[in-house]
Amino acid sequence: MAVYEDDHSLAFLDIHPLNPGHTLVIPKKHYDSMNEMPPDEVGRLFISVAKVMRGVRRATRADGINIGQSNGRAASQDVFHMHVHIIPRFNDDSPGGLTFPQRKRMETSDREEIGRGIREAIDAEV
Amino acid sequence: MAVYEDDHSLAFLDIHPLNPGHTLVIPKKHYDSMNEMPPDEVGRLFISVAKVMRGVRRATRADGINIGQSNGRAASQDVFHMHVHIIPRFNDDSPGGLTFPQRKRMETSDREEIGRGIREAIDAEV
Repeated sequence: MAVYEDDHSLAFLDIHPLNPGHTLVIPKKHYDSMNEMPPDEVGRLFISVAKVMRGVRRATRADGINIGQSNGRAASQDVFHMHVHIIPRFNDDSPGGLTFPQRKRMETSDREEIGRGIREAIDAEV
Repeated sequence: MAVYEDDHSLAFLDIHPLNPGHTLVIPKKHYDSMNEMPPDEVGRLFISVAKVMRGVRRATRADGINIGQSNGRAASQDVFHMHVHIIPRFNDDSPGGLTFPQRKRMETSDREEIGRGIREAIDAEV
């Protein structure tokens, strides 16, 4: 069911929620994922996300909120219309949402090399 | 190290990456989390996120990308300056990023009740 709508976006409850109140926000125009969506339209969509998350938080009395979005099967996307998850989280919550089981420190020199590559790729596009 | 900067936002590599190229995008103005940030500023920040994610994807040759953001300790936030994760994902990846181990189907009647509460909370604010 819809919980929010404006001229370019729509928000509704996930039918397989991680927690009650788990909400999806989508653009009305079709894009497979965020990767295909023009940055200005991404920005406009997240204005809706910010509005909806406040309502989700107040209505569910959540202790926290995860915002998540997946691009591609490797990122566990399974519905190929761009959607943003708003996931209520609670202090006594079970695992899920945004998780980092395998994080480890990366050496400065490795970061610098990867960072250069990313910076060049952004500069080539912006 | 910074990979992107404009007048209101900054992007740099996470020093504890889930995968190489794991990047954070932050607003220059301080907000604890997205919950405190005016929706228009959230939108503006995500224009930067969309630009940076394209660069991260191309430079790391990632198969997918997770976008994630945490509000509050219950959502596993541990640094209280608003930040958005851009996480490269690969087909042979280890678990992490945006995960949903406990999702289960919710009955329509329960969804309708929760949905009404969220819609009212959004309407009260927008």
